[in-house]
Amino acid sequence: MGFGSLKWAVTSRPDGNTPKLQPLGEFGRIRRFFAPLATSSGALGLTDDAAILDLAPGQQFVVTTDALVEGIHFLSNDPPALIARKALRTNLSDLAAKAARPVGYLLTLSLPRSRDDAWVEAFATGLGRDQAEYSVTLLGGDSVSTDGPVTISITAWGVVEQGKAVLRRTARAGDLIFVSGTIGDAALGLLAATWRLEGLAPADSAWLADRYRLPQPRTDLGVALGPLVRAMMDISDGLVADLGHLAETSGVDAVLESARLPLSAAAAAVIADHPELFTSCLAGGDDYELLFTADPANVEAIEALGRQLRVPVTAVGRIVARLQDASQVRVIDADGQTVEIAETGWRHS
Amino acid sequence: MGFGSLKWAVTSRPDGNTPKLQPLGEFGRIRRFFAPLATSSGALGLTDDAAILDLAPGQQFVVTTDALVEGIHFLSNDPPALIARKALRTNLSDLAAKAARPVGYLLTLSLPRSRDDAWVEAFATGLGRDQAEYSVTLLGGDSVSTDGPVTISITAWGVVEQGKAVLRRTARAGDLIFVSGTIGDAALGLLAATWRLEGLAPADSAWLADRYRLPQPRTDLGVALGPLVRAMMDISDGLVADLGHLAETSGVDAVLESARLPLSAAAAAVIADHPELFTSCLAGGDDYELLFTADPANVEAIEALGRQLRVPVTAVGRIVARLQDASQVRVIDADGQTVEIAETGWRHS
Repeated sequence: MGFGSLKWAVTSRPDGNTPKLQPLGEFGRIRRFFAPLATSSGALGLTDDAAILDLAPGQQFVVTTDALVEGIHFLSNDPPALIARKALRTNLSDLAAKAARPVGYLLTLSLPRSRDDAWVEAFATGLGRDQAEYSVTLLGGDSVSTDGPVTISITAWGVVEQGKAVLRRTARAGDLIFVSGTIGDAALGLLAATWRLEGLAPADSAWLADRYRLPQPRTDLGVALGPLVRAMMDISDGLVADLGHLAETSGVDAVLESARLPLSAAAAAVIADHPELFTSCLAGGDDYELLFTADPANVEAIEALGRQLRVPVTAVGRIVARLQDASQVRVIDADGQTVEIAETGWRHS
Repeated sequence: MGFGSLKWAVTSRPDGNTPKLQPLGEFGRIRRFFAPLATSSGALGLTDDAAILDLAPGQQFVVTTDALVEGIHFLSNDPPALIARKALRTNLSDLAAKAARPVGYLLTLSLPRSRDDAWVEAFATGLGRDQAEYSVTLLGGDSVSTDGPVTISITAWGVVEQGKAVLRRTARAGDLIFVSGTIGDAALGLLAATWRLEGLAPADSAWLADRYRLPQPRTDLGVALGPLVRAMMDISDGLVADLGHLAETSGVDAVLESARLPLSAAAAAVIADHPELFTSCLAGGDDYELLFTADPANVEAIEALGRQLRVPVTAVGRIVARLQDASQVRVIDADGQTVEIAETGWRHS
């Protein structure tokens, strides 16, 4: 099939010049923008069919994959460096939620021909910046042309000590429910980024839009929380929906106290003007914060960890025994009254 | 962002019924069609953020990724089961070329809304069939909607004994060059599948089209060849181009004897009628056969292995010292005359 698909296996020349290969453009992009990101010997300089990975004795790999599509997960005119970092970070967030330390990733980039070298260069620059920040390295990839939207598929892996990965399915009645950071910024940030939030201070608007465009995977916190928590996941579909996933796979119910929801100053300012958007904070997606449950005996240790790593951790509810066939997430307000959340598929009594 | 992306983390209920989640369609597809493919405990039944992988002492993982795009790597009306198997097999072919035994894979499926449940079911059935044939298992994935073409990105890994992976970069002057199977069937098969080959017997046409639609990764052969060969890769961009990649990364030149090219009976029938298509066999892509070099002392052992595994292995040329700055692939005919290959980007003297 000729060069429709350009597997990231480029030939290298000692003089560093471009070899006489067709098409120069695509090979050139890989050599110039992506090969420098492949810093581990196992990546073979992106010149082979595959990468080679080692695992230290007593460790396990944790592997995840996450894809972003233009127009769904990011905006067409988002800066390419931010798109790249978001694509990588959504995967790092999954690893953090398993208490795994990230190691490397593979990238498949489906790109319309309209995206030029400058776009790809900026995209790769974003990856390089986050590689340094999170100590991960590119291990290979594939590059394909498409008539459709930009689609970025990343497979990332990390390591944990044998048996120490934290799963979703292990929450127990009696656990407290915690979240990291602040919740709802990304949902409001998407509104801010698309000019659908009127009257918001420009600084708040920009800060919220950044929270939408650039998740903050809680890598250090996730790894450190490992021994202290019972079940963990990251919040991507929205707090209520994801708490539902966690409850369902654990066979429990959950009670979420809406008054305890940690809001950023910017989000609080929005909610003050638009109280109806509070539901978006509870149900909106893209937070990429950690959602975890723990024995109440560990509250102090968990809060101390949050202070030490400068990431707020907030208890927002509790796990209870399951009452019906399907798990329920009940949202209650400060008076203990059930709040109806219309925006999520979960049904509340 | 809500349900635009449905990460393959579905909740499970003891009674096996669909939970009260929106949207039922997508979760239902994953539960019904894909979760049964996740047969290893490390996949966590596709109910978590990630999968967990173990590695036996003394082994290394070999990881590869390959994406297929509708209209480029497969035809829109190709049977979905065959598309799925091709997507998986192109990755298995990469692993075979590293002498690695395949273990598992992650799948990202970008799907237009026009593809219905029956399409997805047939796609998953194809995966299941090849999982059984190649002893691999699904370990996770992501499912996204797209306005563009169907795009399938698979990341697969296998295992090798420590230090035993065979690379591209290790060919030496004096090595013989071998290929497995027959070459050019897929290039002619694409013509056959798109009705651009006149006068071909229907059985030959169907056989060639199958060779295009369904690669035969040489897993057993690749693993067994490991100790006998010096450098190896699989042929996806075409024999001449891929031999160029192998030569370039090894810092050598290659001489390919066109008269030795192993042709299937069907391909030979096509060439008899259309001699001009011989170049397509040399330069066309999608063979997914193994291309490898070896010390001439190993010829008999290699040929014996081919007989034992019932896969032809054919010496088609030799590796020679590099004469110029860039590696050259020289194609010669039965009389030793240089053949000009116009269809590849490689320049021949």
